[in-house]
Amino acid sequence: MLTKASSFSRLVGELKKLPGVGERTALRLAFHLLKSPQNLTALASALTDVHDRVRSCSICFAVTEDDPCAICSGNRDATVICVVENSQDLMAMERSNAYHGVYHVLGGAISPLSGVGPAELHVAELIERVDKGGVSEVVIATNFTVEGEATALYLNKLLKSFDVKVSRLAHGIPLGSDIEFVDAATVQWAFQSRNELS
Amino acid sequence: MLTKASSFSRLVGELKKLPGVGERTALRLAFHLLKSPQNLTALASALTDVHDRVRSCSICFAVTEDDPCAICSGNRDATVICVVENSQDLMAMERSNAYHGVYHVLGGAISPLSGVGPAELHVAELIERVDKGGVSEVVIATNFTVEGEATALYLNKLLKSFDVKVSRLAHGIPLGSDIEFVDAATVQWAFQSRNELS
Repeated sequence: MLTKASSFSRLVGELKKLPGVGERTALRLAFHLLKSPQNLTALASALTDVHDRVRSCSICFAVTEDDPCAICSGNRDATVICVVENSQDLMAMERSNAYHGVYHVLGGAISPLSGVGPAELHVAELIERVDKGGVSEVVIATNFTVEGEATALYLNKLLKSFDVKVSRLAHGIPLGSDIEFVDAATVQWAFQSRNELS
Repeated sequence: MLTKASSFSRLVGELKKLPGVGERTALRLAFHLLKSPQNLTALASALTDVHDRVRSCSICFAVTEDDPCAICSGNRDATVICVVENSQDLMAMERSNAYHGVYHVLGGAISPLSGVGPAELHVAELIERVDKGGVSEVVIATNFTVEGEATALYLNKLLKSFDVKVSRLAHGIPLGSDIEFVDAATVQWAFQSRNELS
C-alpha cells in the first residue's frame, strides 16, 4: 500500500487542485494514468512543454508559442481589432469563422469588487495600438455580464476621442433556442431591438 | 494565437484522454494550469515521479513505492488475507479502519465477455500464498457485481481444498440509507438474511 507521502498521493493532491476535481475524481484520474504509463508520460511532457514554451503575444496578449502570435503575424485584416476578455473567448470567436481581423486580449474585465481596474488589464496597450493609427474599427467582444458590459462602456468612452468606429457584438436570442427557456432580460432586449423583415 | 500543433493543443489532447474529460473541460483545465505555473510544474513532476517510482507489491500486487508494500511489511495480521479486485477497493477497505490483516489484489474480476479469465488475474499467486501455510482466513471482498460474484464463487471453490476459512463481505442495506430508495434485490437479500435482535 502507498503511504501518505508517496508520489501517488502527491499526484492525487495536484489533480485535486484542478477546477471541478474533488478527492474521488482525483483518485480515479490518478489510477487511470497509473494504468496507462504512455498517457502518464505524455501528459507530463505536455505540461512541461506548455510551461517552457507558452507565453503571451507581445501585441495582442493571446496565449502563443511564437511571438508575435500566428494571428498578429498572419494574413489578417489589421484595421479591425476585436477586444476579448481572455484567450478562451478568442478561441470561441475563431471557432465561429466569422471574424478575419486581429485581436486584443484584455486579461479580464473591470470588476471593482475584485479589485480589477483598467490598470490591471491591457487597456493602455489597446489605446496605444489605436493611437498608432491604421485601425478603422474596434469590435468589443467582452462578455455580456455586469463586468463585461462595464468594460465595454469604459472602452467605448476611452475610444471616442479617436477616429475609429466602436462596435459591440449583438445581443439577442441564441440560435436554436426555445423562447420559453430564454431569460426575461434577453427576451426584452430581443424585442426592443427587433428587426423588420424585408 | 496558438496553432493546432502547439504544446498547448497537445496538453489539451492529453487531458481529453482522461476519463470524464471532454473538449471543453480539457480546455478549462489547460487554461487553469496555464494561469498557475506553480501547479503546472508540480503536476508535471508528480506525474514523472509516479511513473518512476510506483510499482506493484511483489506479495499482494497493491500499488506501492516500496516493495514489499507498507501493509505486507508492516505490523499486520498476516494470517488473514483480504482479496480485492484492485487498489482502489483496498483503499476503501483501509478507510473503513475495520480490517487489520493483509491484502491480495487480483487486478480485476473474472469476465468471460471481456476475455478476462483466472489466468489474467493474480489467482495463482493467491493460491501459492495460501498453500505456503500460515493463513487461517481468506476474506473475499470482490465487488457485488456479476463479475465480482463469479470471482468470489470461483475462489471459494479453489480454496475449499485448503484448510482455511473463506468468508465474504456481508450483503445488505447500506448504513444511513432510506429503504424506499434501495434496489429490490438488495432489500430481498436483506430480508432473507435478517438477524434476530437480542
